[in-house]
Amino acid sequence: MKAVQVVGYHRDLEMTDVAEPTVVEPFDVIVKIGGAGVCRTDLHILEGQWEEKSGVALPYTIGHENAGWVHAVGSAVTNVREGDKVIVHPLITCGLCRACRSGDDVHCTQSQFPGIDTNGGYAEYLRTSARSVVKLDDSLEPAAVAALADAGLTAYHAAAKAARRLGPRDTCVVIGAGGLGHIGIQVLKALTPARIVVLDRNPEAVKLAESIGADEGVVADGGHVDHVLGLTDGAGAEVVVDFVGEGGSTSEGLRMTRQAGDYHVVGYGENVDVPTIELISGEKNIVGNLVGSYNDLCDLMELAARGLVTLHTARYRLDDFQQAIDDLAAGRVRGRAILVP
Amino acid sequence: MKAVQVVGYHRDLEMTDVAEPTVVEPFDVIVKIGGAGVCRTDLHILEGQWEEKSGVALPYTIGHENAGWVHAVGSAVTNVREGDKVIVHPLITCGLCRACRSGDDVHCTQSQFPGIDTNGGYAEYLRTSARSVVKLDDSLEPAAVAALADAGLTAYHAAAKAARRLGPRDTCVVIGAGGLGHIGIQVLKALTPARIVVLDRNPEAVKLAESIGADEGVVADGGHVDHVLGLTDGAGAEVVVDFVGEGGSTSEGLRMTRQAGDYHVVGYGENVDVPTIELISGEKNIVGNLVGSYNDLCDLMELAARGLVTLHTARYRLDDFQQAIDDLAAGRVRGRAILVP
Amino acid sequence: MKAVQVVGYHRDLEMTDVAEPTVVEPFDVIVKIGGAGVCRTDLHILEGQWEEKSGVALPYTIGHENAGWVHAVGSAVTNVREGDKVIVHPLITCGLCRACRSGDDVHCTQSQFPGIDTNGGYAEYLRTSARSVVKLDDSLEPAAVAALADAGLTAYHAAAKAARRLGPRDTCVVIGAGGLGHIGIQVLKALTPARIVVLDRNPEAVKLAESIGADEGVVADGGHVDHVLGLTDGAGAEVVVDFVGEGGSTSEGLRMTRQAGDYHVVGYGENVDVPTIELISGEKNIVGNLVGSYNDLCDLMELAARGLVTLHTARYRLDDFQQAIDDLAAGRVRGRAILVP
Amino acid sequence: MKAVQVVGYHRDLEMTDVAEPTVVEPFDVIVKIGGAGVCRTDLHILEGQWEEKSGVALPYTIGHENAGWVHAVGSAVTNVREGDKVIVHPLITCGLCRACRSGDDVHCTQSQFPGIDTNGGYAEYLRTSARSVVKLDDSLEPAAVAALADAGLTAYHAAAKAARRLGPRDTCVVIGAGGLGHIGIQVLKALTPARIVVLDRNPEAVKLAESIGADEGVVADGGHVDHVLGLTDGAGAEVVVDFVGEGGSTSEGLRMTRQAGDYHVVGYGENVDVPTIELISGEKNIVGNLVGSYNDLCDLMELAARGLVTLHTARYRLDDFQQAIDDLAAGRVRGRAILVP
Repeated sequence: MKAVQVVGYHRDLEMTDVAEPTVVEPFDVIVKIGGAGVCRTDLHILEGQWEEKSGVALPYTIGHENAGWVHAVGSAVTNVREGDKVIVHPLITCGLCRACRSGDDVHCTQSQFPGIDTNGGYAEYLRTSARSVVKLDDSLEPAAVAALADAGLTAYHAAAKAARRLGPRDTCVVIGAGGLGHIGIQVLKALTPARIVVLDRNPEAVKLAESIGADEGVVADGGHVDHVLGLTDGAGAEVVVDFVGEGGSTSEGLRMTRQAGDYHVVGYGENVDVPTIELISGEKNIVGNLVGSYNDLCDLMELAARGLVTLHTARYRLDDFQQAIDDLAAGRVRGRAILVP
Repeated sequence: MKAVQVVGYHRDLEMTDVAEPTVVEPFDVIVKIGGAGVCRTDLHILEGQWEEKSGVALPYTIGHENAGWVHAVGSAVTNVREGDKVIVHPLITCGLCRACRSGDDVHCTQSQFPGIDTNGGYAEYLRTSARSVVKLDDSLEPAAVAALADAGLTAYHAAAKAARRLGPRDTCVVIGAGGLGHIGIQVLKALTPARIVVLDRNPEAVKLAESIGADEGVVADGGHVDHVLGLTDGAGAEVVVDFVGEGGSTSEGLRMTRQAGDYHVVGYGENVDVPTIELISGEKNIVGNLVGSYNDLCDLMELAARGLVTLHTARYRLDDFQQAIDDLAAGRVRGRAILVP
Repeated sequence: MKAVQVVGYHRDLEMTDVAEPTVVEPFDVIVKIGGAGVCRTDLHILEGQWEEKSGVALPYTIGHENAGWVHAVGSAVTNVREGDKVIVHPLITCGLCRACRSGDDVHCTQSQFPGIDTNGGYAEYLRTSARSVVKLDDSLEPAAVAALADAGLTAYHAAAKAARRLGPRDTCVVIGAGGLGHIGIQVLKALTPARIVVLDRNPEAVKLAESIGADEGVVADGGHVDHVLGLTDGAGAEVVVDFVGEGGSTSEGLRMTRQAGDYHVVGYGENVDVPTIELISGEKNIVGNLVGSYNDLCDLMELAARGLVTLHTARYRLDDFQQAIDDLAAGRVRGRAILVP
Repeated sequence: MKAVQVVGYHRDLEMTDVAEPTVVEPFDVIVKIGGAGVCRTDLHILEGQWEEKSGVALPYTIGHENAGWVHAVGSAVTNVREGDKVIVHPLITCGLCRACRSGDDVHCTQSQFPGIDTNGGYAEYLRTSARSVVKLDDSLEPAAVAALADAGLTAYHAAAKAARRLGPRDTCVVIGAGGLGHIGIQVLKALTPARIVVLDRNPEAVKLAESIGADEGVVADGGHVDHVLGLTDGAGAEVVVDFVGEGGSTSEGLRMTRQAGDYHVVGYGENVDVPTIELISGEKNIVGNLVGSYNDLCDLMELAARGLVTLHTARYRLDDFQQAIDDLAAGRVRGRAILVP
């Protein structure tokens, strides 16, 4: 089959012909790819940023945001059958460790990450596990939802965690209305009655945010922290979700967080650097966020099926993978780039 | 009455004669002091560290850890009566703001802090509020519990928050077995079945910790982080409670915190300085902790009444306040110094 | 002032002239009534059903769903001032007991209930407490929201409790789309992404439910339990909220509750009568619901201010109280009857 | 191998020779039995009470409380290996349904129950799943803990659920200090600082309860409900855990439950029959309890390994199964009867 592989760091991806994956273990599921998201992480992989961390042997097939149709299943698989339309959770988890047994499979102690440390989905077929596939509603197409498998799932997870403490009188500030923030806003709107205030440097992104659920959009042009404090009687928001994590957003985020409030870190780049006395006198929480669990993905697909979470996609044929990569690197993609067969 | 007052920063306290406080507002309660804790914060006040923050007009009476007997009550007070033995919550709170109405009175938007921003308890009498007094069990004496009013209450609050997620298979690391840590360990032991591992640089403090409930004591002599990681299969503890907050304890604390674990900041001094990527990849939470609520103080008094939380005290007559201050500053106090009438 | 009083059980109410209430205690608030809800409980009071329970001395002024303008305040009142538009929480609570200190003021051990055990709001003025008044948004009028003070607040409380565990893949069944159910559906819609299925015997009520947020309406005509089970693959709903509580709704409600699900009792009349083996083998929870807290009322007013919860009202002049009572007793009121000055 | 089987209802069990179970599915685990608990449910099975519910085909091997050593494992098993000492969770669960993916495997939609609906552990070997085996600490022996696999696990589950809301000032009433109650009291003592009040009709059981952690023992001789109310200022306990569920314990339990409190049903027999008005005016919760999850069993084994939960056992050779059954039926067993090889 065709597969697009990392053949070396600081080099272009290459399309090659490899053997189709086959069922080996009883819980294996082979998915015929219907859509594979092209993610900024893919660029970082090529830059070698993941080389040490993943320890993956080259060449291997890239692509960690996948959806498609079940092509074959192992002997123990009971939750899907050939032909089912599925989205693929980015991790293959063991099902037996304490984290997996607690519904917290993202912290599985023996997980694999196709596209990062084993073969991924820039290909015709992908091998994953019964524990990683979520059946899609009839109304959803693989190519339309593939990018929700990782970027969207991360946004869902953070927004859903944030929503747990948000009530009608609360304010939730979202920093960043880009790829993840865009999903996060829609999820917050669906899950919580809190007022949603969205900050972005880009006025267009702010406008978009207002059109998908933000109660208030604020262009981050220098006076935005004071503006947000003004919206909350000077006290700050009960919850801040930071989808940026760089360029000073962490200290701004903490300043906009109310006494006893939660500051959620989702985007990353800079350091959180805060005096302990401030954490204590404000009794604030800094909450890390990783990708969502299998259950989170099921919940997100439910919202997508009802049209409560949508995503703009730009589709490329798998053969045109280099164009998609180039467009992403150049900032020419609106929404998410998706490779389709 | 006699009162010990701050008459200027960078000067000694002075005993003087002032009018006894009287009932002014309907919820006022006048407490005859039975014990007033001498706290390191009192030293910091004299050094001027609180001058700007509190904005208090000098002279005023210092002392924020108080217990005694109810001497007089306002017209609306129904929860205590003259003669009742009470401990005094350090804050006077409004009872009407959203925080107060939610049981989270520590975040009252209009609180006063006797001993810090209004007259405190280094005196014969103190004015506080019906909302701030907790009746003591017959078995407890004011002078024995006064220091639980602030230092102990802070330790209780952090330990009780930490305990919420701790189960039998979890590990809780306590950094620092000094004044607060000492109480925190006893509280953790009473509230949770988790394994408690205590770190301190002082081998004597480690021994004491083991005698009051630590399942494992570790002298912080350089290899302690690795030692703790070794105790948890390299993964770290579900919860770390840091009663130190300086000298590198924050980065050590985060390193000892497991994936999806909680790192509680209680002691303060240095900055928490951590790459966002670490918070995210480990999905860790950094949890600020302030003093406990009125309910926390009620709970702590219940544990004290059952003998589950005890505190060593060194008593000084109010007239000997300078000796108590000097002993504290010189590190000559074992346990907590208490001024008694 | 004019006041409508209970002068005897099994007798009509009588309008009389009584002294205006005045400020006595420091937290007293006198409210000029702008709207007083006429509730079925008022009919039950006249039938003597509350005689023993309330122990109120006759005559007294009836009316427990009140809103209006602050007319006078006691010396300790800081949260409202003369002229403020307010809705009145039905209970006057002490603020000092453990329940009040925990934000759970409904279970105050010393509460009063104006309109039930002390003078209520079928009058020109009402005496209540600073702890019971919630300021209204500019967009809300007292007469429009008065009925939310008790009936609406009860529905809010149950719906908000129910919503805590509801996620996108869950189903919430609402039994009864009458006065309370009508509010409950709107609240559930605002607070949770769960699918909302509403049952009522009245096809008109089912239609109304669908127009205000029910995802599915079911006429309770005999096959409804099977119909609901069919909607949930035979398993039942994660949560059932029963606003009826009689005519067999409790056993039907429990049958429609999934394994490990919650069955909320709000309406009352019959007994819950269920074999312990069924509660155990299904691990089901039966959840009692009383009126909401002060915080619940604040949250509900926020939803009302945003137009997320609305209520149809039929207004009567206070002088026409008997007409309102008669219309309610005869089932001639659509929405809620409100007495206005 | 030897196996004790149900050959017909209303007939004695029979020992016979059957083929040893072998690994069939990839997650299968074969356990060499070290101890099999003899449970009252086994008597009920013989009486035919489970005939319809289980639908099991006769003959089959009885016994659902099992522990032993791993004898063989399927190809996908990674959490145990041959020779490991294990206790066996009573259910074989699928690992793929929503309940399993949420850590709530007890509500697995496709579970099997060895000893009830498939072959159990009154035998030399048992087939179970990798998802059902918990490794034992070196200090624990299979025969000593086997009875914790079901009876103990049920008690643990209820006590741990109850403990979640219990703080130092709360009271937890335990009804019944027999087999389950005995474990429940020890678990409550380990998990919560609440005061534990234990009721039993048998004064010996009350004494035992006091020796293992009850703060107060009450002989249920008629005045016990009033006695318990007296211990709680007439208000009742925050939590009541009813291990009896018959003979009037449900109405007594609800009477002893405080406003907004939880009444946990664990034992069964009679109906809960309560007016809805009482559930509402007291805002009480009736909480069903089934057996514990896999995580609960891991937690319980941790407490057992630390000596915090112990159980008296009476051991019988597997060949003497009839004697064990007869002794249990006649009330001659102190603690739990265990069949050993």
